[in-house]
Amino acid sequence: MPVETLDRLRLELDEEASRVCREIDELFGQLLVSRDDGRDILFAAMRHAAIGGGKRLRPLLTVAGARLFGIDRDRALRAGAAIEAIHVYSLIHDDLPCMDDDDVRRGKPTVHKAFGEAAAILAGDSLHALAFEILADPATHEDPFVRSELTIELARASGPNGMAGGQMMDLAAEGQSLDLPAITRLQQLKTGALIEYAVEAPCVMAHLPAEARTPYRGYARNIGLAFQIADDLIDHAGDPERAGKRTGKDAEAGKATFVSVLGPQRAEQQARFLVEQAIEHLADHGSEADLLRALARFAIERNH
Amino acid sequence: MPVETLDRLRLELDEEASRVCREIDELFGQLLVSRDDGRDILFAAMRHAAIGGGKRLRPLLTVAGARLFGIDRDRALRAGAAIEAIHVYSLIHDDLPCMDDDDVRRGKPTVHKAFGEAAAILAGDSLHALAFEILADPATHEDPFVRSELTIELARASGPNGMAGGQMMDLAAEGQSLDLPAITRLQQLKTGALIEYAVEAPCVMAHLPAEARTPYRGYARNIGLAFQIADDLIDHAGDPERAGKRTGKDAEAGKATFVSVLGPQRAEQQARFLVEQAIEHLADHGSEADLLRALARFAIERNH
Repeated sequence: MPVETLDRLRLELDEEASRVCREIDELFGQLLVSRDDGRDILFAAMRHAAIGGGKRLRPLLTVAGARLFGIDRDRALRAGAAIEAIHVYSLIHDDLPCMDDDDVRRGKPTVHKAFGEAAAILAGDSLHALAFEILADPATHEDPFVRSELTIELARASGPNGMAGGQMMDLAAEGQSLDLPAITRLQQLKTGALIEYAVEAPCVMAHLPAEARTPYRGYARNIGLAFQIADDLIDHAGDPERAGKRTGKDAEAGKATFVSVLGPQRAEQQARFLVEQAIEHLADHGSEADLLRALARFAIERNH
Repeated sequence: MPVETLDRLRLELDEEASRVCREIDELFGQLLVSRDDGRDILFAAMRHAAIGGGKRLRPLLTVAGARLFGIDRDRALRAGAAIEAIHVYSLIHDDLPCMDDDDVRRGKPTVHKAFGEAAAILAGDSLHALAFEILADPATHEDPFVRSELTIELARASGPNGMAGGQMMDLAAEGQSLDLPAITRLQQLKTGALIEYAVEAPCVMAHLPAEARTPYRGYARNIGLAFQIADDLIDHAGDPERAGKRTGKDAEAGKATFVSVLGPQRAEQQARFLVEQAIEHLADHGSEADLLRALARFAIERNH
């Protein structure tokens, strides 16, 4: 691809990413208006975690995927906000002392550091419920069948056979020497399932039957692993300012990662290979898939 | 009502309650088959909490409500299991050391005592997701509009403007002297919203428009408060064996309850009055509402 084209795509991606960040913040701002009845701490904790932070990778994927099928942007954003609410709740719970015990997240104190553990658990639970409230609302899609399918697939992607199951495998893996297939499986549950859902959601919204979603799921699976390798490389490089959180945690906890198993050089090669594969899955599409292509290409070079 | 009729109704309620307990256990048993890949602790924790315990009051309400409208029993049970999954997840999280710090629940060690705090948090999160997976499944209702409405209402009843919000108000109220309206409001969120949903779900499944659901919501609101008063009386009486959990907690934590504000005698009168009111809401129904009537009448005399 000529350098001018790459530069243009990178600029377009940066603009779209900033816009999605702004819009997701606005949507959460509207949904999380504080109540002055003993729940003020709960809403403050939810706002602290959900507003003004993160790359909003998942909503960005949903909005970029919506371009493929001409899905209304506001509806895609609502689905993206539901996915982000799930992601944020999982970060709040994962950061708790009994889990990963982190004090800093997205450059801010973690929710339990700022509001206490009880409020953190309830803020996570509340965002978890909010995700389904957003998704099942007619404003997200006019077809109740689509809303119902979006709901069941999000529940699967985030439950014991998805994200929560992956987090359990991750905790159980501390001090164990996992091999590459085991790490891949763990990450496909822990972070991959929700990323895959973020790309599948616009397919569901476009009434694509399950068998026609295969290339998009393939794209999502590849970039999900590529992002995880990029994260492992950042954790390995160990610059907490760049990461926005504590680094070197995996090695400290004796956790096997893509980097510990492959070494940094082969891990980076593998991430590039996965990106090429991801883009390959979009071969049937024209310029409407450029944003998804740019996301795959540039996201492993991201700053945090 | 003649004594023979009362005896017959009590027997019928006992039989239906035992059947619902057995069927909910079976359903959770089918849904929670352990995975041998690092998630075995997670599934064991979910089974420990979800199977073989509790009165299953919420599924019983859904099954009893389904009788009013001729809703298929298996479908009502699935909706009831989704509600019970939400209830169980909230018990797991509420029992954690940073929340109510309880060691015993339903006569067994709490989940964090048996499996550790991390597994307890993830088991709660997993049951939370499972609830929506059950509810949005076509096996629960053939009409996707109904599934979608069931989803959004359950999310509302359990989120920051329902159960989770009520739990936050409860934590914030420790050491505060709440008055009767404040306690009522707190309980309507913390436990009332989900009980109301358990009765509203069969109305939604019967395609009842929102305005036609008023008497059933009134019934549910009254028994929800009556049950809470009964719970407060048990906690006040202080027999942990009867309660299946530690008692005297509210007084210890300096929490205002219906009993601390009204005194035990007036609290009991109030519970009886609420039961009469609840039954009044069912005046338009014949014998198909007998189970709901019996539930209201006998549930405040329950053993635990």
